[in-house]
Amino acid sequence: MSKSAKVVIIGAGVSGLKAAEVLLSSGKLDKNDLLILEAQDRVGGRLQDTKIEDSKLGIKYALGALWYHDTLANTPLRDLQEKGLVKVGDVYYDDLDAPTFTKDGVLDVSSSKLNRALEEASQFFPLFFNDETPDLSCDEVVTEYIKAHEKLLTEEQKEYLNRGMRLLEIWHGIPSVKASGRMALLKHEGRNLLNKKGFTFLIDTLKKEIPDSCFLLKQPVRSITQEMHAKKSIMVETKNGLTVETDFLIVTVPLSILKLDSNDEYGITWSPPLPKPLKGVIDNLGFAALGKVFFEFDRIWWDNKEERFQVFPNKVEASEVDHALEKLPPPFTFPALVVNYAKLYPNKLGGSLAILTPSPLTNYLESHPNEAWTYFKPMLEKIAIKPIEDPVNTLVTDWTKNPFIRGSYTAIPAETADLALLNAMEHESLGLEGSNIRFAGEHTVSKGTGCVHGAYDSGIREADWVLNALSKPSSKL
Amino acid sequence: MSKSAKVVIIGAGVSGLKAAEVLLSSGKLDKNDLLILEAQDRVGGRLQDTKIEDSKLGIKYALGALWYHDTLANTPLRDLQEKGLVKVGDVYYDDLDAPTFTKDGVLDVSSSKLNRALEEASQFFPLFFNDETPDLSCDEVVTEYIKAHEKLLTEEQKEYLNRGMRLLEIWHGIPSVKASGRMALLKHEGRNLLNKKGFTFLIDTLKKEIPDSCFLLKQPVRSITQEMHAKKSIMVETKNGLTVETDFLIVTVPLSILKLDSNDEYGITWSPPLPKPLKGVIDNLGFAALGKVFFEFDRIWWDNKEERFQVFPNKVEASEVDHALEKLPPPFTFPALVVNYAKLYPNKLGGSLAILTPSPLTNYLESHPNEAWTYFKPMLEKIAIKPIEDPVNTLVTDWTKNPFIRGSYTAIPAETADLALLNAMEHESLGLEGSNIRFAGEHTVSKGTGCVHGAYDSGIREADWVLNALSKPSSKL
Repeated sequence: MSKSAKVVIIGAGVSGLKAAEVLLSSGKLDKNDLLILEAQDRVGGRLQDTKIEDSKLGIKYALGALWYHDTLANTPLRDLQEKGLVKVGDVYYDDLDAPTFTKDGVLDVSSSKLNRALEEASQFFPLFFNDETPDLSCDEVVTEYIKAHEKLLTEEQKEYLNRGMRLLEIWHGIPSVKASGRMALLKHEGRNLLNKKGFTFLIDTLKKEIPDSCFLLKQPVRSITQEMHAKKSIMVETKNGLTVETDFLIVTVPLSILKLDSNDEYGITWSPPLPKPLKGVIDNLGFAALGKVFFEFDRIWWDNKEERFQVFPNKVEASEVDHALEKLPPPFTFPALVVNYAKLYPNKLGGSLAILTPSPLTNYLESHPNEAWTYFKPMLEKIAIKPIEDPVNTLVTDWTKNPFIRGSYTAIPAETADLALLNAMEHESLGLEGSNIRFAGEHTVSKGTGCVHGAYDSGIREADWVLNALSKPSSKL
Repeated sequence: MSKSAKVVIIGAGVSGLKAAEVLLSSGKLDKNDLLILEAQDRVGGRLQDTKIEDSKLGIKYALGALWYHDTLANTPLRDLQEKGLVKVGDVYYDDLDAPTFTKDGVLDVSSSKLNRALEEASQFFPLFFNDETPDLSCDEVVTEYIKAHEKLLTEEQKEYLNRGMRLLEIWHGIPSVKASGRMALLKHEGRNLLNKKGFTFLIDTLKKEIPDSCFLLKQPVRSITQEMHAKKSIMVETKNGLTVETDFLIVTVPLSILKLDSNDEYGITWSPPLPKPLKGVIDNLGFAALGKVFFEFDRIWWDNKEERFQVFPNKVEASEVDHALEKLPPPFTFPALVVNYAKLYPNKLGGSLAILTPSPLTNYLESHPNEAWTYFKPMLEKIAIKPIEDPVNTLVTDWTKNPFIRGSYTAIPAETADLALLNAMEHESLGLEGSNIRFAGEHTVSKGTGCVHGAYDSGIREADWVLNALSKPSSKL
């Protein structure tokens, strides 16, 4: 079968849907001008909720993003508020100081001023690096901070600084011994706002503006060919043998797919091959695996006043965490951020906890979900204020096992760290100058990388690029 | 009487003393090459302690700076540590979360998440201003933040945001309705470290390296004349009729003195007059009046576990605080930061509190020290956990009354806000190109403005400039 459209978007995640919505609402394209090729049998990409029937508590858990980040500059939040779709009960700033635990029990980070030392360590990062400083891992920079300020730190602070800073793994999705120190500390623009409604309603809201006829589901792309002399300049072929000709192509597949060899079953064959500058950027960016484990309980045995808990890992060797795990690691090998869903959903018979996990723990647990409780039980015992009970239900994300997703989002490893990589994805054509092939997604923004709002913004950016090209008198259309 | 020296430094504060020490320790100048003219009968400038006999508790209080700020990049702290002069008990990070009070009693900024909203308001400032945005006052920017995020803020947060952000007045030294919003939020480089030893030991340490014969005390400068054709190119004349000829002049008088008309009794006559670019910068920078009140008590009636307390002001009109006060204002008109000295000096029979005050309150209280308790008593009653007692002793700074000082340090008012002003003092000659007249002091740095380390760094900078000029073959020497 073959089709054609002025504009083709690959991927019906938030960036692709937002691009489609902007294109259609411009009035310059009608529904016959646009096709969206989606590999999976559903839209939404990495924004997905669990099914309500999979929960014993009747909760739909967000498998992907949970928070609006950078809420002083969050475009989808602003747009949804303007539409009256974000009401007071739909969002919740869950940023009380989180009680902190180690294998030895509660750790009072406030009275020990460990919180202040952690803040100061964060200020140390940008001071440590000048343009010539070679990158170090996030963990190594913390060690440098301790070295530089040894005399002014307490023994307790020195003991816990590296371990405490490992909570950044919940942002980075990769271990601190691998994450770039240079890129470790993002500048945030506002508080994090927990989105109780989940992000699938954003997907639904966007999808409503796009006619069903624009969507072609279960159409993973096999090859992209730029036929310079054909009537339509770009040819996209899917695994199912569908061919689509188009003038403009917006590629929003995850970075993990772009990173695959073209001979990989899920990879894309580019003809001509992707230019070296672009290939280099794609290779040098990393792809993390942030995951989540949800435990449901018949009774609440933790302090339900708290919004979240954090658990510092033990001191472990880099060699214990910097590679794929072949068996379940001991508890306290990785940091844990525990979100108290019982506080979010107070009127349930029981309660649940969500735990965010970095790679390589995520990869292991997503492949061995029945071991999750074995790993976390000794850690959660620390936060228990009543006898701890086993969960009646466990749900684990499966992003790393989904061949169209393969993890969570962009990460920057120390060996290749360079903000220029993201700036390049955002601003440069990287060898595709003169072509109408464009990229969008969370990996193509330097602000909001890995976030819903970053992906959303990139969709607007690329739709605007196409609209601008269409309005030029030299346009072939 | 007349004298001459290769280098003359005006002002024996920390910047002047550090410049002198660097010059002498270079080996390129000997003690006969250097003269330091100091207006007062003592060295140290704005670093001064109270006399021990003025305290009922035997404490020497720092009238000027109390903290090492930006301790990741604080040169004097680093130098003093290297000399073994800062020991564990000499310094103290007093940065526990401070209990917060209003006229209505304690305010739990943590459980109300007001602390988070205040942090977010701080992040809003740099986002609000782009290159073209006209400056607003600090207070107006907070109002803009509330407007922009009204729907996501609680009523309590909206009630207290402006009032809470007024604690910045303790940094700025001027009211939030006057302080520049664009310049309101300094980027800090590390924690604040309370210096129990006081800063006069830094003065003493520097002074030890400078022969007494270099100092000429009680020699306020009356005029500076650049005689281009005389043997020595710069002529300095003091009020006492002393004239000093020199090749190099480092002027470290406070900004408040530079701002005076030349016909003011304490002003300096420049001949030829100061070039317009330099005059413009001096006029556009402001000069604040941060002051301190020390109350000594026979008994401790506050929670002695706490390191400090903060008191939010009431909601007041700009017109109540933006001008000199003719009578004592009602309590809660200005914010108060209260330092618990009883925690710093635990073995005393009694205890004391130090309260930092911004202008114009400082100016009023320094002229009416006996009214300080009347103003503060109703505010301190809020923090009392036992029946409050009247102080047995009150000490108040007198910087605004000292004609050679006239307040505390550089402030940036909204109407003239421009970091370029400070950069200019630091990097540009502003019409004095080709001259050997240089400026140092806390008003001549863009990092550490108003701080001991900023002044210290400026002394190094100008000593290095002179040494560099001396080493040039074209030098007249």
